Formats: sequence, C-alpha cells, structure tokens
Amino acid sequence: MSCNAWIVSIGNELLIGRIVNTNAAWLCRKLLILGFSVKRVLTIPDSEEDIVEVVRECVNRGVRVLILTGGLGPTYDDITSESLAKALGRGWEVNSEAYSMVVEKYRSRGFEITNYRVKLAKMPLNSKPLPNPVGTAPGIFTIEGNTYIFALPGIPSEMEAIFSGEVEKILGEIGSKTYFLEGIIIVEGVPESIAAPIIDKYMKKHGEAYIKSHPKGFESSKPVLDIRVLVGGVNVGNAEAECSEIVRELSGELVQNGGFIRSTSIQRLNH
Amino acid sequence: MSCNAWIVSIGNELLIGRIVNTNAAWLCRKLLILGFSVKRVLTIPDSEEDIVEVVRECVNRGVRVLILTGGLGPTYDDITSESLAKALGRGWEVNSEAYSMVVEKYRSRGFEITNYRVKLAKMPLNSKPLPNPVGTAPGIFTIEGNTYIFALPGIPSEMEAIFSGEVEKILGEIGSKTYFLEGIIIVEGVPESIAAPIIDKYMKKHGEAYIKSHPKGFESSKPVLDIRVLVGGVNVGNAEAECSEIVRELSGELVQNGGFIRSTSIQRLNH
Repeated sequence: MSCNAWIVSIGNELLIGRIVNTNAAWLCRKLLILGFSVKRVLTIPDSEEDIVEVVRECVNRGVRVLILTGGLGPTYDDITSESLAKALGRGWEVNSEAYSMVVEKYRSRGFEITNYRVKLAKMPLNSKPLPNPVGTAPGIFTIEGNTYIFALPGIPSEMEAIFSGEVEKILGEIGSKTYFLEGIIIVEGVPESIAAPIIDKYMKKHGEAYIKSHPKGFESSKPVLDIRVLVGGVNVGNAEAECSEIVRELSGELVQNGGFIRSTSIQRLNH
Repeated sequence: MSCNAWIVSIGNELLIGRIVNTNAAWLCRKLLILGFSVKRVLTIPDSEEDIVEVVRECVNRGVRVLILTGGLGPTYDDITSESLAKALGRGWEVNSEAYSMVVEKYRSRGFEITNYRVKLAKMPLNSKPLPNPVGTAPGIFTIEGNTYIFALPGIPSEMEAIFSGEVEKILGEIGSKTYFLEGIIIVEGVPESIAAPIIDKYMKKHGEAYIKSHPKGFESSKPVLDIRVLVGGVNVGNAEAECSEIVRELSGELVQNGGFIRSTSIQRLNH
C-alpha cells in the first residue's frame, strides 16, 4: 500500500504573504520520519469551493494521509470543518466528545458557551475529536476510502501539540517502518556544476538514496556546497552502512576534483 | 480580465521539510501589491509528471500569472525548464540570448562551458530569458494562452533579484491598478470568540475589506489580538478613508466589549 501524503494549508493570510507556511515544513519532516512520502503541499483560500475540490481530489486519488491545517477557529471565515463535511457528503453536527472538551476549556476559565464557541465542537459525522492541549479548538480525525484525514488548527503551537499527542500515534500504525539516516558533507572549492555529474553518478549507483547539493555561495567564484545524503531502509544497520559508504566515497571524489572537505557527519532521523 | 495567480514551488527538499518555503510568502506579498490575487500555492516534487500536470491545469483554467520556482540549476534533478517545454508542447533548445548570459557569467570567472552549464541556457521555444544578477541560471518568461509564465530559481536571493529586476516590470503592465492600505489594531482583553461576531459585522458592512484577527495569547485566559484590516481600491484617497473608518469604528466597539487598545496604525502597501 502506498504511503503517500498531502498537506493542505487553508488561509487567506498565507496567500497574501502575511504568514510564512512553517507548518508545512514541520509536517513534511514529521511525515517523512513516520514513513510517509509527501507528494503535494497546497495552500488554498478560506473558500468552501476550494476546500471541497482539493479534499475530493485527494480522496479520489487514494492518497493515504491528508492533513489540513487552518480554519478551525471561531471566526466567520473558519470554515474548514463544515467544508470537509460537505466534501465527504456527510452531515455537520455537534460531536458530543468534542463538545465536552470545548465546554471544559471555557468553563474552567469562567467563560460562557456561545454559538461561536459551540461551533468549535461541530464536526463531520463519524469523526473523532483530537484533544488540543494548547488552545480551544479540538482537531478532527476521520477516514474516507483509503484516506486518513486530519484537520488541525493553523496556529503552530496548537497544530504541533495535537500532532505530537494524537496524530503521530495513529500514523505510527499505518506508516512504513523505515529508518532514515542523513549524511552531511560541507565542501569548499567545487562549483555545483562540477559536483552535479558526480552526485548524479552516486544517485544512479544507490537507487534508494536521495542526494542534493545546496549552494552556499556564488556558484562560480567561491563555491561552498552543503550536500545532503538521505538514506532510508527497513534495517537500520544496512541503512547506516549505505549512508556512510556514500558520504565516504562522494567526499573522496570531491577532493579529487579540487574540493576541501570542511566537515562530514551522519545522523539518525527517527526511531 | 481576472488577475489571479498561482505559485508553484518545485523541489523534493521542500517536501521532506528541509527548507521552509519563504519564497512563496515573498511572492504572495509582491503579487498582492501588484494587483494580483494568489489563488493557490503548490509544492510539488522534482518530477516531470507533476510539473506537466500542474502547468497544464493552470493554463487550462486560464490563470493570469503562473510563477514556478526551483529546478533551474545544473544538477540532474533540475528539470523545470525541460518539463515546462513538455507541458506546453514546445521544443526545448538552447536560447541564444540565454546562452550569451551564461557564457559571460562563466568566462568572466575563468570557467569553461560544459554540457552541465549549457543546460542553463536551454529553454522552451518562444521564451525570453530574464537576467540573473546574482547567480548563473537566467529566469524564463513565456506566454501560453491567457497565462504569463515565469520560471525562477529556487535560491531566494536569485529569485528575488530576477523578480525585482524584470518580472515586476512585466506584471506592472497587466496587474489591476489597485492601492492597498493595511490597518493594524492590537487589542488586549477581548477573546477571539467575542471579537469574531464584531469583525464579521464589519466585513459585511465593507464588502471589499479583508479583516482577520490573529490571537497572540491563549484565547480564553489573557487574550491579545492582532487585527489586520486590508483595504484595496483604485482611488488611494477613498481607500485610506475607508481603512481609517474601519479601524476607528472597530476599535471603539472592541473597547465597549472590555478591550484595551494597545495600538493602531495604518500604512500604504504599494505605489
């Protein structure tokens, strides 16, 4: 079964450039080390039409995991939950478990339950609310076809807390059991255009590895490259051995091409 | 004519969460003040299939402006230019103007022209290269149907330099001539769920304004809201008057609801 994932960030504030989408990068990293391959990140407006279109497309393609962020708050333009229900062709009603969570949050701080607050407990039918230890809006978990769907708040601290508290456990059951190692080579004096065919050769030799160079200075005057070697495998010992071999051999070849190796390192990314 | 725009960020390094997509936020802001409404930001892998699919979808929908970032470099996985040619059903050949730019960059620094470097000058037929004052890969500008298409490097300094040097001029000709004003209200002591119906009311009263509250503390204990009022208009005086009115009246109503106004301000975003 394919372990691919989509992330959909919802919010006009992202599309007018007020906010940088740090949530997406955080989620991509988390999903990678849980064994999922993120195939697409989309940012769309707080618009029912767009949310319905994207959710349906994702479910129709059989994507394994869909994570929506943003639009779960009490304001008029927070329409993710209702639009999700519409996309799935389900009713949108107060979830009793979510209602208890929301009431407890407000009552413990001396606030009354208003319509704007009850809204936080409304979810598509057959959803499970995910406790929000930081804010008031619970997350939403539901399944449609092959797709596990999570809707999380857009505020990073709330999104991260719900993900770490609940989502990670659920995804841990269905993700591929893959160990990830990352090797880092910092090399001076080799322009990217010289490194490119060398990296190309190692990518072909090690089909499962992902190697990428990131230029740190002007490409043709004083080049510094930060080269990342990402190796995944079901056996951690084999993955470590492969990553070490690539880092060692690739470094050697960069030296032969006039490079000075500033540093190399290898680290485990998960488990 | 609709002045909508899509931004497509290309790169596996974004999808594994190594890099935060700051380019997208920077471009969204620039496009807004040039009079375009960004409807979608997508991040996709360095994959011909995905690039072709997304470019064709965008052109078929008649989106006015498509900006691609990433994948213009010399490495084997930099396939944006070739994939763009395929999406548009055009040949992919050395562009003589681009070739001169690339040769000049390398020769002036004593580097030879290799196949990996010539690749930087290959573009879809009927493209115009955009000078890159920071790096070696020129940007690409071409038109297909109703869509102005720009392909820019993924490295922020290069992307920004090409955009500011060339893209802004081209878009200035086709964008809507709209002035943007942003009002900012920082208010303490009003939870977002109290502010929501008030903001809702002002959004309905001022159909063209976009008002959004960003909670800065826990919603129900010690709330601080950063409220942004975005007003656009073809007449700058009218837009300023409307923005001032909303900020003044909205602040007043927040005070009536127990709020303390820490600060208000209004600024022009363009022209």
